[in-house]
Amino acid sequence: MTGLADGVLGGLDGMLGDLEECYVDLHRHPELSYQEIRTAARVAERLAGLDYRVTTGVGGTGVVGVLDNGPGPTVLLRADMDALPVAELTGLPYASTATAIDGDGRRVPVMHACGHDMHVTWLLGAARLLAAARADWRGSVAVVFQPAEEFGGGAQAMVDDGLFELVGVPDVVLGQHVAPAPAGMVLCRAGTIMAASDSVLVRLFGRGGHGSRPETTVDPVVMAAATVLRLQTVVSREIAATDAAVVTVGAINAGTQDNVIPSEAELRVNVRSFDQQVRRRALAAVERIVRAEATASGAPREPEITVTNSFPITVNDEPATLRLTAAFTDHFGADRVVEAPLATGSEDFGVLGDACGAPSVFWFVGGIDAAAFAEAEATGRLETDVPSNHSPHFAPVPHPTIATGVRALVAAALAWLRDGPGDRARA
Amino acid sequence: MTGLADGVLGGLDGMLGDLEECYVDLHRHPELSYQEIRTAARVAERLAGLDYRVTTGVGGTGVVGVLDNGPGPTVLLRADMDALPVAELTGLPYASTATAIDGDGRRVPVMHACGHDMHVTWLLGAARLLAAARADWRGSVAVVFQPAEEFGGGAQAMVDDGLFELVGVPDVVLGQHVAPAPAGMVLCRAGTIMAASDSVLVRLFGRGGHGSRPETTVDPVVMAAATVLRLQTVVSREIAATDAAVVTVGAINAGTQDNVIPSEAELRVNVRSFDQQVRRRALAAVERIVRAEATASGAPREPEITVTNSFPITVNDEPATLRLTAAFTDHFGADRVVEAPLATGSEDFGVLGDACGAPSVFWFVGGIDAAAFAEAEATGRLETDVPSNHSPHFAPVPHPTIATGVRALVAAALAWLRDGPGDRARA
Amino acid sequence: MTGLADGVLGGLDGMLGDLEECYVDLHRHPELSYQEIRTAARVAERLAGLDYRVTTGVGGTGVVGVLDNGPGPTVLLRADMDALPVAELTGLPYASTATAIDGDGRRVPVMHACGHDMHVTWLLGAARLLAAARADWRGSVAVVFQPAEEFGGGAQAMVDDGLFELVGVPDVVLGQHVAPAPAGMVLCRAGTIMAASDSVLVRLFGRGGHGSRPETTVDPVVMAAATVLRLQTVVSREIAATDAAVVTVGAINAGTQDNVIPSEAELRVNVRSFDQQVRRRALAAVERIVRAEATASGAPREPEITVTNSFPITVNDEPATLRLTAAFTDHFGADRVVEAPLATGSEDFGVLGDACGAPSVFWFVGGIDAAAFAEAEATGRLETDVPSNHSPHFAPVPHPTIATGVRALVAAALAWLRDGPGDRARA
Amino acid sequence: MTGLADGVLGGLDGMLGDLEECYVDLHRHPELSYQEIRTAARVAERLAGLDYRVTTGVGGTGVVGVLDNGPGPTVLLRADMDALPVAELTGLPYASTATAIDGDGRRVPVMHACGHDMHVTWLLGAARLLAAARADWRGSVAVVFQPAEEFGGGAQAMVDDGLFELVGVPDVVLGQHVAPAPAGMVLCRAGTIMAASDSVLVRLFGRGGHGSRPETTVDPVVMAAATVLRLQTVVSREIAATDAAVVTVGAINAGTQDNVIPSEAELRVNVRSFDQQVRRRALAAVERIVRAEATASGAPREPEITVTNSFPITVNDEPATLRLTAAFTDHFGADRVVEAPLATGSEDFGVLGDACGAPSVFWFVGGIDAAAFAEAEATGRLETDVPSNHSPHFAPVPHPTIATGVRALVAAALAWLRDGPGDRARA
Repeated sequence: MTGLADGVLGGLDGMLGDLEECYVDLHRHPELSYQEIRTAARVAERLAGLDYRVTTGVGGTGVVGVLDNGPGPTVLLRADMDALPVAELTGLPYASTATAIDGDGRRVPVMHACGHDMHVTWLLGAARLLAAARADWRGSVAVVFQPAEEFGGGAQAMVDDGLFELVGVPDVVLGQHVAPAPAGMVLCRAGTIMAASDSVLVRLFGRGGHGSRPETTVDPVVMAAATVLRLQTVVSREIAATDAAVVTVGAINAGTQDNVIPSEAELRVNVRSFDQQVRRRALAAVERIVRAEATASGAPREPEITVTNSFPITVNDEPATLRLTAAFTDHFGADRVVEAPLATGSEDFGVLGDACGAPSVFWFVGGIDAAAFAEAEATGRLETDVPSNHSPHFAPVPHPTIATGVRALVAAALAWLRDGPGDRARA
Repeated sequence: MTGLADGVLGGLDGMLGDLEECYVDLHRHPELSYQEIRTAARVAERLAGLDYRVTTGVGGTGVVGVLDNGPGPTVLLRADMDALPVAELTGLPYASTATAIDGDGRRVPVMHACGHDMHVTWLLGAARLLAAARADWRGSVAVVFQPAEEFGGGAQAMVDDGLFELVGVPDVVLGQHVAPAPAGMVLCRAGTIMAASDSVLVRLFGRGGHGSRPETTVDPVVMAAATVLRLQTVVSREIAATDAAVVTVGAINAGTQDNVIPSEAELRVNVRSFDQQVRRRALAAVERIVRAEATASGAPREPEITVTNSFPITVNDEPATLRLTAAFTDHFGADRVVEAPLATGSEDFGVLGDACGAPSVFWFVGGIDAAAFAEAEATGRLETDVPSNHSPHFAPVPHPTIATGVRALVAAALAWLRDGPGDRARA
Repeated sequence: MTGLADGVLGGLDGMLGDLEECYVDLHRHPELSYQEIRTAARVAERLAGLDYRVTTGVGGTGVVGVLDNGPGPTVLLRADMDALPVAELTGLPYASTATAIDGDGRRVPVMHACGHDMHVTWLLGAARLLAAARADWRGSVAVVFQPAEEFGGGAQAMVDDGLFELVGVPDVVLGQHVAPAPAGMVLCRAGTIMAASDSVLVRLFGRGGHGSRPETTVDPVVMAAATVLRLQTVVSREIAATDAAVVTVGAINAGTQDNVIPSEAELRVNVRSFDQQVRRRALAAVERIVRAEATASGAPREPEITVTNSFPITVNDEPATLRLTAAFTDHFGADRVVEAPLATGSEDFGVLGDACGAPSVFWFVGGIDAAAFAEAEATGRLETDVPSNHSPHFAPVPHPTIATGVRALVAAALAWLRDGPGDRARA
Repeated sequence: MTGLADGVLGGLDGMLGDLEECYVDLHRHPELSYQEIRTAARVAERLAGLDYRVTTGVGGTGVVGVLDNGPGPTVLLRADMDALPVAELTGLPYASTATAIDGDGRRVPVMHACGHDMHVTWLLGAARLLAAARADWRGSVAVVFQPAEEFGGGAQAMVDDGLFELVGVPDVVLGQHVAPAPAGMVLCRAGTIMAASDSVLVRLFGRGGHGSRPETTVDPVVMAAATVLRLQTVVSREIAATDAAVVTVGAINAGTQDNVIPSEAELRVNVRSFDQQVRRRALAAVERIVRAEATASGAPREPEITVTNSFPITVNDEPATLRLTAAFTDHFGADRVVEAPLATGSEDFGVLGDACGAPSVFWFVGGIDAAAFAEAEATGRLETDVPSNHSPHFAPVPHPTIATGVRALVAAALAWLRDGPGDRARA
């Protein structure tokens, strides 16, 4: 098998310059969820000349390319395309200065702070290599460029819009994510690998008035602040230390000026869990606390609590993970393939395998310069010096990150695809 | 003196329809501080035909009209023109739907939630009546339409831009404000009548990151929430019950989405006080708490604490207040002139008298339908049923509020102006 | 009248050594509310030889002495006897080292931290002087030594136990308190002088368990802490700045060790107000917050909220206050009689006048060395250097505090009593 | 080996009545750490007739019995003896009503809420059986009855007082704990099994004063409450969800009455962790927060933060655990031996093995009626219906808990001891 992947990947070196340009271009032009117009257009252009059957506008802005290459298994490879409303602070020459109108009608800065630009680049590279080497393998490859992973819904939207009618039921669904680990490394684990995530939008209602006469108002700023502090107790008091959960209030917004008490406050709460029972308990506690804190303030109206978004737990199929890990070990060597820790991040990748009943595997690819990573680790400064995903400082190094991700995708796909005559000839 | 005011005010009834149109037009077109372009233009137009010497652009968008009418005292009458970033909820047929870009570059709704539209209308009515009856009095009247009272600085800006070179040093500075009291009533008090106000902008710095990995971040949302709760103790623990102070956090803003921990939070704090020592103690406590809560969070950087705006205590000159109250009692009858309670609201009106060394008096004019007010009072529902200034529901009734305010201004001015030959002839 | 008081007070100087001994003895032997056994015995002993008709055990440990001295008005003079569960830190040679069992069965330190030892000393001195000079006045004097002022109920207990059957209806009820003001000064005001006080005992119920497994418990420590912080908002947000109220949590107690989560927490809350409406609003807010915070914690049982104790507002009768102030001014000179500020402290003194329908007046007598007070004031260190009542450092100076209080009581009583033949002879 | 244990345990059934009496007696007479006078006396009495070489007063109240029974390995079996300051609420006929004076001089209720009465009973039963069957085995058995496990220090005190001079270096150190698991089950795991625990005593200093004048004080109740709420963020924000830690404030105490603001508050904080780095981070965060909250309050003096007590992580030696688990499986059958979950509880048991360099193993024995446990589990009410250790409701069922623990100790000891001639004869 090594030989097969090595063969297919033979053209990679000559392609790296072009892939880096692609990456930098995408990085400079990040787009929010469901607004991936330009990104999808670039993807479609690049697939155009490669014999993939390309369908655009799948689930909004999604792009699907299918390369039917004779009888054999079907492998679905997925990359997500959207960026985040974060103001980039990397200082890179190709840092984003883009802005966009978000779902609430606000103009916000936009940045690929989660590395989806890298994901798209990887999958474009793999798509091209697999197409170029189609003599070497048999089966079908479906490359799926998904919109709107960040705010969830993108995977489901593609499913609902007929993804599996375009692709058929694949034998395996594969996906990968760039991570704050040393570039050159791949990280995977069987079973649960990523958390469930629930986004809860909380609207708290007070009664506005003049800042100097709080006694005529019900102050939603105080209500929101008390709620945020009390929400800390969900994890500190209500979840066992040996269970894992996160309750983050990512946004608190109320009022615009000091001398007017506003009438509402908004909290955006994110709940992570790895277990359905923990998840239910945490969500119930959030609701209980929000309602009680509104009552403590004498709120004139019940809060509105809306789950706007849910990601399932990401669970890697055990046999498929074993097959994948074996392929990685063959290709990269055992020292570059490590067991991933349980990640508190979430993904809607799992929706794809669930929807079609196929096994799925998700893994991580390091994106941090290995020497810098080692130094940060040695000096105990990993957390301060190695920005994680969603940080305004998150910036994977293009090399060897681009090459590693392309290699991983190709090696993974070939672990399921059948040998082609070209490969057999070479052997 | 009664006769004089009654004579000058003879023309008021025929003018009320026009003044109501003026009021409704201003209410429909509110403008933020220093953006009072349209309002100033309407003011200048209306002054144009009345023999006032009109200067526009004083202190930005301010308008000054001076009517020199023979030897005698100079009376300065001041109205403020600006509106607030509040989304109107009055349901009135002439409710504002306006928006504007605020000082932070955000598009915000705009509403005359503090009644400055009424103030402008009053002063235009008084200006017209005084001009029409100029045979009845002697002296000079300066009508001053001030920008940017809400965020302070407007009065100072006019002073700095030469207001008193245009007007000379007046014998008295007079101003009035519409208040949640029964329409038809005027309310005044000698000595301190309104609070000092300090606006404090607080920027809290954390370290952003992924919502699922709080341990890699310093969460500014929690830091801000803890700060807001702790700031409640300034008034509850550090100011004597028998002193008066208010510490309001009118705005708390951090983050835009649930799964990204932002790197900063912003608080807008307003401090009210009636005494310099209380003021210093409250401001020092705010600073101490903000810094300590940042330390409690392990903030990577000290908070920025900026006093963006300060209003002085508004103090009514005692002899001038006596003269004014006597004039009001003569004109309105004793039952419509009551002692104003100490108001926690603030004004930059006091800047004008301080700057020129003249005595000044500020008073309130009721704007709530008297029957509705009485019923709310009787049923103990004043606070819920009578919206106060800055509420999105604040809506003075045009009648008799417009007439009462015009009458008060004219009666007040004539308490200082000298009788003219017209009046003496009539007598 | 001056002459009369001066005459009666002629014997004071020779008595001061004995009164100081009495004071020091009482200070060394403080007793908690309703435990004033030794104090009452000392009082009865001292009254014994003075021709007062003495009744002990009135309302528990109260002592009443009546001296009927011919036809004329009846003056009731009241002193309270009880001490506080405070560990004395004055460092005085006669500092208390006493302990006692409190109402909850706990052994606690006891200290005259509120100066009732001084009050008893004053009234004993005045009683003796009035008895000695009985030729100089006519009427009746009732000296009332009340138990249990600190935890309220003592005045009511005496009333219920027939105080006014012993005394008759007096013409005036008079009382005085030592205060952190310069020794030698007396301070009074007409109308409201002291606050209402309500003591609220809050029991919060959680579910106990092992400190390492909070998820199996409902943590009452967190519940109590959140409640305390939220209670700060009653004053900061729900009471107008121009109204006065205090909400103090004087005690929070839960648990005894770090690794056991207790099942209950107890808060002792004190609410001060000067107005019935403010009082009702504050008490309602306390209850609302306590209940809501228990709900936020998921408490298995509703909190218990008990008003254990209430003091009324202390209101000085206006004409009686005028008469009293005139007498003080005559006796002390105008520079030693000042208007008292509104005090947030509370008293059950007002119960006596209310119960019998007589006017009552309450005033303060300074107890701090005048030079030390002046220096603290000049250096802005009044709050740190001059301990207030209930502080473990509170320590009135015996001289001239003892003499001033005796003089004030005698001058006050004589302002109502009628001249006697002795005085008239002297005149 | 099965045969050996079965033989030695042959006498158990006839002994159960006596052991239950022993258990009930101990349960009725719980004693606090280092006060185990009566318990130690009972232990010494029972060992007296059994040929053990008994030493009392080891490390305070500890008791050591050594039975040298020919050449062979030495097995150290340890039980802890102390109880907790908890008021028993089990309603059992033999419930404790005992009280004692704790280390702070307070009279507190005492209860065997952690089951050490069961531990002592088990070890006495095993000691008797091993002595009776001494023909069946060779080697030495040391039975160690340790004081003061709850507040730590007991194991170290015995070591410091010459435990291993009495016993020699054992081949293995064994201990067991009754747990809220089904009676009849034993639970063990290799590697880390219990958490590190650090007890942190926090004294917060304010400035006391009258409850009605908070502005003259620095309120330690508010300081303590804010600190407790902020401490919740250590786990919720500073420890990764996939790491395990607990920060519990088990006690908060300040003040005794509502109208006196006390000058100090005391918090008792417990920190649990399974990893040195997490432990250091949590302890540092506790200190940072305590200091900053004192600063936020304007405390006149730095808080005192004292680690009063630390338990190490309990780590089971891997080979020894394998040997033990094999012996348990042989004796009880595989269905009664399960892998223990990581427990957030802590022990000073690990001190013994560390001190002498011997491998050690610690395990759990279920104490809850199996049917009741199964029903609680089935109805999702484990947490409410099955009280955990340290709960006032914690009550192991005597049967089969007593027998199971004795069997486990004997089977465990014999897994190291050598066959004796008696056993060989039988075989």
